[in-house]
Amino acid sequence: MASMQTAAAALRLRDGRSTCVGPVQFSRGWRRSGCVKMKAADMNTRKIHVTPLREKRSGGGEAEANGGYLLGGFVAEDRFVYRQTFVIRSYETGPDKTATMETLMNLLQETALNHVSSAGVAGNGFGATREMSIRKLIWVVTRIQLQVDVYSSWGDVVEVDTWVDAAGKNGMRRDWIIRDYNTNKIISRATSTWVNMNRETRKVSKIPDEVRKEIQPFYLNKVAITPQNFDTHKIEKLTDQTAHRIHNGLAPRWSDMDANQHVNNVKYFGWLLESVPINVLEDYNMTSMTLEYRRECRQSNLLESLTTIKVNGEDTQMLECTHLLRMEEDKADIVRARSVWQLKQPRHNI
Amino acid sequence: MASMQTAAAALRLRDGRSTCVGPVQFSRGWRRSGCVKMKAADMNTRKIHVTPLREKRSGGGEAEANGGYLLGGFVAEDRFVYRQTFVIRSYETGPDKTATMETLMNLLQETALNHVSSAGVAGNGFGATREMSIRKLIWVVTRIQLQVDVYSSWGDVVEVDTWVDAAGKNGMRRDWIIRDYNTNKIISRATSTWVNMNRETRKVSKIPDEVRKEIQPFYLNKVAITPQNFDTHKIEKLTDQTAHRIHNGLAPRWSDMDANQHVNNVKYFGWLLESVPINVLEDYNMTSMTLEYRRECRQSNLLESLTTIKVNGEDTQMLECTHLLRMEEDKADIVRARSVWQLKQPRHNI
Repeated sequence: MASMQTAAAALRLRDGRSTCVGPVQFSRGWRRSGCVKMKAADMNTRKIHVTPLREKRSGGGEAEANGGYLLGGFVAEDRFVYRQTFVIRSYETGPDKTATMETLMNLLQETALNHVSSAGVAGNGFGATREMSIRKLIWVVTRIQLQVDVYSSWGDVVEVDTWVDAAGKNGMRRDWIIRDYNTNKIISRATSTWVNMNRETRKVSKIPDEVRKEIQPFYLNKVAITPQNFDTHKIEKLTDQTAHRIHNGLAPRWSDMDANQHVNNVKYFGWLLESVPINVLEDYNMTSMTLEYRRECRQSNLLESLTTIKVNGEDTQMLECTHLLRMEEDKADIVRARSVWQLKQPRHNI
Repeated sequence: MASMQTAAAALRLRDGRSTCVGPVQFSRGWRRSGCVKMKAADMNTRKIHVTPLREKRSGGGEAEANGGYLLGGFVAEDRFVYRQTFVIRSYETGPDKTATMETLMNLLQETALNHVSSAGVAGNGFGATREMSIRKLIWVVTRIQLQVDVYSSWGDVVEVDTWVDAAGKNGMRRDWIIRDYNTNKIISRATSTWVNMNRETRKVSKIPDEVRKEIQPFYLNKVAITPQNFDTHKIEKLTDQTAHRIHNGLAPRWSDMDANQHVNNVKYFGWLLESVPINVLEDYNMTSMTLEYRRECRQSNLLESLTTIKVNGEDTQMLECTHLLRMEEDKADIVRARSVWQLKQPRHNI
């Protein structure tokens, strides 16, 4: 089993020559912070790429790229926490000029994958460990809960921490904390539950002992969302009768597929929003969301998005929505979700 | 009119204190390359943010974020070329694990916007200059041509150069070159034509003299795509009779809107692909694409995507496609396009 230390020793250059992780290959930040930084692993080759800094070249790209290589690393004082920073790009912001919830979810995915790579346990799947790859297993998420206090803007730098822990006997929990890099304030928190699935039979399986042995050394007994804020309530299943709005005919596009040839989890989220009224999308910020993934969907499936909105009496400052994404044909659940929305203007005035 | 030099003097910290650009605020790369590096401008406040390096903090994020701040800069030996590097993120790759054409187009957009910011001429619109903002003008693209030789993978670093020049009397040309940062080889080239549009009347206008005076000092007589490769042929308008495939009922999603409250240019591209057969998407790489933008579309419009495929005799190694994106209701053109596709396998064997 590869630990962080042995992972470091196993690093390979692209041309196949062995190397070891040392400050000489990294920026000064490495030495100062004492964290291991590396380029994202190539999951296909089971090698972790560490690209040595190139010869000096003129041009604006240089320092940026040197920084850009260093995708993230384990945190010195909390060595099972993987940390990575991102600059929010223009195309990751929505009509209101802030990073969309989908962007946040993408950043969570990116750090999770880089965490697996950096831990030195990556197999040849999208985030799968070596023992999982041998058994044709992939990770599937069953539940994710996000809380967003502040949405970032274009050009803002955010810092994402992630770590894993056990989730009952058969699952893994992955948590994240997102901070504004300038203020160091926590702006978002997330927790998720993952299980194994056979990529051929598409059946969910227990995490095999060999896989558990790979990931257990990284388990960290720490929670991003405190138990009192942890959303454990059952999410009601909407029906034609209970839904306020139904948007049907949603067709996954080719570009919605991921490397596992199925619809990427983050895309489901966008479809859930399709049945949310435009004035809610425009005038409210989503402050929390819980998604329960119940079934996979493939490109050929047509989907329906259902939403019901609950207002607390006369007070329209805050809305609670229940959502359902289901197959159009047999109405089978794909994702159930719950979201909380806060009116934008008052938040700015506080 | 603000030049690069006066822009530097006008830089502001977020809290409103003035500062000036100096090596002390930037990485060593700044001093070596002699380029001006800055955080993306906040277009709303007409200020350019330069966030000073923070006090040392432990954790993997630090060096990365310091690099992350430095979004790009002007190139020392070619000072009107703006250069920025990017790490390809997992969620920017498609089912075949390489960066999608949409990702490339997003990176082109991001560098164009950061170029305007870094040039110190940014007004309060998405890429608009100050004189444009005063006149309620926005940039709209009328034509873009991309050539892609190599598609990058997750974790690859790409370096994007961009610059502008005149396009006839009334337009501006913007070119880009994308290099693989490791090999320094050019992997993609693009050129585009832009005109001004009044954001209220939605009418195209000449570039006013005052705007031309702002941007002209940055004009560079250099082309990314050589004249013999420049696609100037008229793009045939497909009809129900000439199209091989028609995909109708395409509905822009809320998340397809950009900060100008209309559908982002890059999204059109995804819809064009909707009428391309899945086996072409899977088995071929798009090696070039020319898009002619003819009309805006808003969220309420339903769209149709049409494609016709031309094979050169028996040789199916290369395909040429003609595309049309049009309104479902009145069949008005939105985008006409032409694309060339190369079979994947033979390219890998070369």
